[in-house]
Amino acid sequence: MEGKSNMYEGVEVVGREVKVANKRGAGGCEGLLRVLGFVFCLSAAVILGVDKQTKIVSLQLVPTLPPINVPAHAKWYYLSAFKYFVVAHAIACSYAVLSLLLSLGNRGGKRGNISLGIAMADIVMVALLFSSNGAAVSIGLMGYQGNSHVQWKEVCNVFGKFCHQAAAAFVVSALGAIAFLLLIVFALKRLHKK
Amino acid sequence: MEGKSNMYEGVEVVGREVKVANKRGAGGCEGLLRVLGFVFCLSAAVILGVDKQTKIVSLQLVPTLPPINVPAHAKWYYLSAFKYFVVAHAIACSYAVLSLLLSLGNRGGKRGNISLGIAMADIVMVALLFSSNGAAVSIGLMGYQGNSHVQWKEVCNVFGKFCHQAAAAFVVSALGAIAFLLLIVFALKRLHKK
Repeated sequence: MEGKSNMYEGVEVVGREVKVANKRGAGGCEGLLRVLGFVFCLSAAVILGVDKQTKIVSLQLVPTLPPINVPAHAKWYYLSAFKYFVVAHAIACSYAVLSLLLSLGNRGGKRGNISLGIAMADIVMVALLFSSNGAAVSIGLMGYQGNSHVQWKEVCNVFGKFCHQAAAAFVVSALGAIAFLLLIVFALKRLHKK
Repeated sequence: MEGKSNMYEGVEVVGREVKVANKRGAGGCEGLLRVLGFVFCLSAAVILGVDKQTKIVSLQLVPTLPPINVPAHAKWYYLSAFKYFVVAHAIACSYAVLSLLLSLGNRGGKRGNISLGIAMADIVMVALLFSSNGAAVSIGLMGYQGNSHVQWKEVCNVFGKFCHQAAAAFVVSALGAIAFLLLIVFALKRLHKK
């Protein structure tokens, strides 16, 4: 009987250890995703935030005179969608730090309400990041392709470097948004397993 | 003793009834949100999908000749962002019907994995809806304001009715996206309470 009791106790201890290890693993994964979210969002904001290019373009003012060369600038804050992108990603990376500190202070999910609050704020971040990514990509695509119906000409044929850097920011931003999306997936799975 | 036992039983029964009522309430709320998500997404897709306007504009082809009047058309499928918006909202409203049927078949959350799967698909819908909304709004805003830096002229001064209808679609789309966002908030709260 004593042996059996010891065996049960052993199984219980192993079960508890597995549960603790699982919790630690989930916590580590959540922490890693928050760090990735921070790195990607900060990188995206910086890559677009420092994006500028100056090109000399020739302008024909009067048909009888030779064209004159003038400098043309491309800067991220010339476009509202790019401003929204940079501000949204700055908010998201600040939030990533704050939520990382809060979840580290709440290791093991001791205070359930904090975990729930963080998961809800994560949803808002997903909405903000996908919205700003969509806005910036659509303007970027318009700059790359132009549109004959509304007579908006492409600008990427002139500002190639500016457009490539913006495209890199959009890809990094998508990775950041996916990191936040995965955080909610993990939160749902964690709560579902409870 | 018997009286006490009856009292406890009574409390237990009342507690069970409150739990069942809460579950029903949560299910009803989820169902309502799915119906709202469907209605808003379908409305947004239809409002933008039927949006078109024709205006007669005068064009000066040769300076020595009088201007000629030509019809100019504005249609939603002239712009990639608007195409993305309509397709994304069509996907979301189809999904709303499917998920409503699945959650009705899984009333009371009998099969936890189905509820979890639906909640995860809801997150993808939130990402899709906010992304397409951001893309379409940014192009709409460009059409309304124009941008002197990239020399894209506003088009809403000519196609006012088209732009107003598009703006209505964006507002309705935002409501649909919020309905899906609230579904995840409710799923998190429900799983947290378990």
